[in-house]
Amino acid sequence: LSVRDQLPAIAGVAYLNAGTNGPMPEAAGEAMRRELAESLTRPRITKAAFDGLFAVRDRTRAALARTVAAPPEQLALTSSTTQGVGLVVAGIDWSAGDEVITTTEEHQGLLSPLDVAARRRGVVVRAVPAEQLESAVGPSTRMVAVSHVLWATGRVLDLPGLAAVCREHDSMLLVDGAQSGGAIAVDAPASGADFYAFSGQKWLLGPQGSGGLWISPQRVEQVWPAVSGYLNLEGGQVGVFKTTAGRLDGGSVDTVTLAGLAAAIEWVESLPGGRAAWIERTAANAERARGRLAAVAGIELADPGPERGPLIALSVAGAGDDLPELVAGLAERGVLVRFIPNTPYLRVSIGAWTSDEDVDRLIDGLSALV
Amino acid sequence: LSVRDQLPAIAGVAYLNAGTNGPMPEAAGEAMRRELAESLTRPRITKAAFDGLFAVRDRTRAALARTVAAPPEQLALTSSTTQGVGLVVAGIDWSAGDEVITTTEEHQGLLSPLDVAARRRGVVVRAVPAEQLESAVGPSTRMVAVSHVLWATGRVLDLPGLAAVCREHDSMLLVDGAQSGGAIAVDAPASGADFYAFSGQKWLLGPQGSGGLWISPQRVEQVWPAVSGYLNLEGGQVGVFKTTAGRLDGGSVDTVTLAGLAAAIEWVESLPGGRAAWIERTAANAERARGRLAAVAGIELADPGPERGPLIALSVAGAGDDLPELVAGLAERGVLVRFIPNTPYLRVSIGAWTSDEDVDRLIDGLSALV
Repeated sequence: LSVRDQLPAIAGVAYLNAGTNGPMPEAAGEAMRRELAESLTRPRITKAAFDGLFAVRDRTRAALARTVAAPPEQLALTSSTTQGVGLVVAGIDWSAGDEVITTTEEHQGLLSPLDVAARRRGVVVRAVPAEQLESAVGPSTRMVAVSHVLWATGRVLDLPGLAAVCREHDSMLLVDGAQSGGAIAVDAPASGADFYAFSGQKWLLGPQGSGGLWISPQRVEQVWPAVSGYLNLEGGQVGVFKTTAGRLDGGSVDTVTLAGLAAAIEWVESLPGGRAAWIERTAANAERARGRLAAVAGIELADPGPERGPLIALSVAGAGDDLPELVAGLAERGVLVRFIPNTPYLRVSIGAWTSDEDVDRLIDGLSALV
Repeated sequence: LSVRDQLPAIAGVAYLNAGTNGPMPEAAGEAMRRELAESLTRPRITKAAFDGLFAVRDRTRAALARTVAAPPEQLALTSSTTQGVGLVVAGIDWSAGDEVITTTEEHQGLLSPLDVAARRRGVVVRAVPAEQLESAVGPSTRMVAVSHVLWATGRVLDLPGLAAVCREHDSMLLVDGAQSGGAIAVDAPASGADFYAFSGQKWLLGPQGSGGLWISPQRVEQVWPAVSGYLNLEGGQVGVFKTTAGRLDGGSVDTVTLAGLAAAIEWVESLPGGRAAWIERTAANAERARGRLAAVAGIELADPGPERGPLIALSVAGAGDDLPELVAGLAERGVLVRFIPNTPYLRVSIGAWTSDEDVDRLIDGLSALV
């Protein structure tokens, strides 16, 4: 089977929105069906069942860790990027007046936790354009909280550069990896970040309600498990938290979900060239799509900055304000993209599976509808 | 098919530990397989897919709400009792010195969030024996946080009585319903509680990683979403939280999990007499099991108090200290129970599906092993 044939959800459509939810591989479905059959037919209360539960948690944690080039003990299991960001922000002991710098282009999953910290703890949140980030960091900055790939424009931030500035000012760096984990090459430990939250259901092609949070070993004991339970405790002892990133595990997730995420990650790794080749193909497809789209009269691409990710934001001359209707019209033609509220942009997510025909269908759809 | 035949995991065993994880009905498996097929084969990025996502969230919320006799807008979707308790405790603006009264018999899922509140916020946690609860509540008590059914001994607390004392002292009442939701009749609004957290995977027979949190409408706007994201926001606006209990939804949960929980709840409702009959049968089975076990020489039952739940804690004369080995020996005979650490008790969970033969197998196993 070709890669495309192993992604059943892309059959017949131009699947251009992995930035929201990716297409799950059949291998993930197979793992989930198997795990579901176990849950249904075998008592979930035997030693074998508990061993199985911890084994699938370990396997998923290790798989997530490989995607960000980190050891498994630095990975917390979460249900989303949002939960990972939220657990970090809620777990830090803020002082009133602590400053958090972010960009003007962030998603609710990052902004809402910061809003809560501002209102409950007196944190001062300052949003600046991405290109002003480094100069905005100063002595009162306690944290820089930004996306690695900005969700609206696809711009890729220079994390090591930002991390160097953060270190100068003794500031933490929290990264929202919703549009980078599985989409571009990520080396969380080498990035200089302190925290790196990412999603299972987007570029990693896993089930919904799954994700990972990488935590620097220097920081893990500085963050409280804000919503704590048995899974965060060492040997089940109340008051004694794990010293690994499991300290921040986001709570119970069905083994069916976990098995699906692990299998999705392992499936990409099993393809020729593994994840590195997959990411290279993603980048090459995005670059080719960018060129083809830029050549169409009336289509204007947002500037992605010097680095390129797999998100392409584009505006269409004459499209007017009703982007929801344009997106719906494209969907009727089997072209699946999204729009970004309060901007002129449609957002196109290019995957390793994206073909020239997919991009042609988008171009044809736009020219028919606008 | 008989009820027993529709619970595949009980085949061939005496399934006596729904207090940890219940047996899932085939109807839940069927719903999960269907939802999984959708997730796998249909793009999860179309309007139909998003409508489906919100529909399954609504359906699950409504199903959970019926189990505690509340309207759906008073229910938050969570991944466990622990998460529900944790979100409430983390969401309250504590002042140093605020007192929380609990019992000496609580689970980590309740104690760990309280421990975090004590260490981070200066909350003073005082644990008293269950029978001293009402007299322990005083003017400095800000919250009483207790299980409805105590997990170790199965004792059922008198919530309305406790709630009346709480009201006198302007104290909140947080209930850990891990061993009550789906196990005994629960009317959360009538109980006088402010918060009632319960599990999906235990007595409600749903998948792991699922649960509900009932919140009194008087309290919902007093609790911050400690780990906040898109799902907690009204119309996605940062800073504007839902005014329903969805304000405290615990984040993303796979639609496969949600569909399984909803179907498990609906399956019980579809049986003759619905949930009321199911709960009556559970109670009758527990009472009969209690009588049969109490009649065996050498078996001593813990005092469950005046009300009776479906948990039976028992000690066995001559069993010695190695309860893990005793539990393992019983499991080899297909008798599935658990022990309670730091107590002399085996805990037996009686379900609506429990037969006299199940109890006989337990008695035979104990007499063979002790």
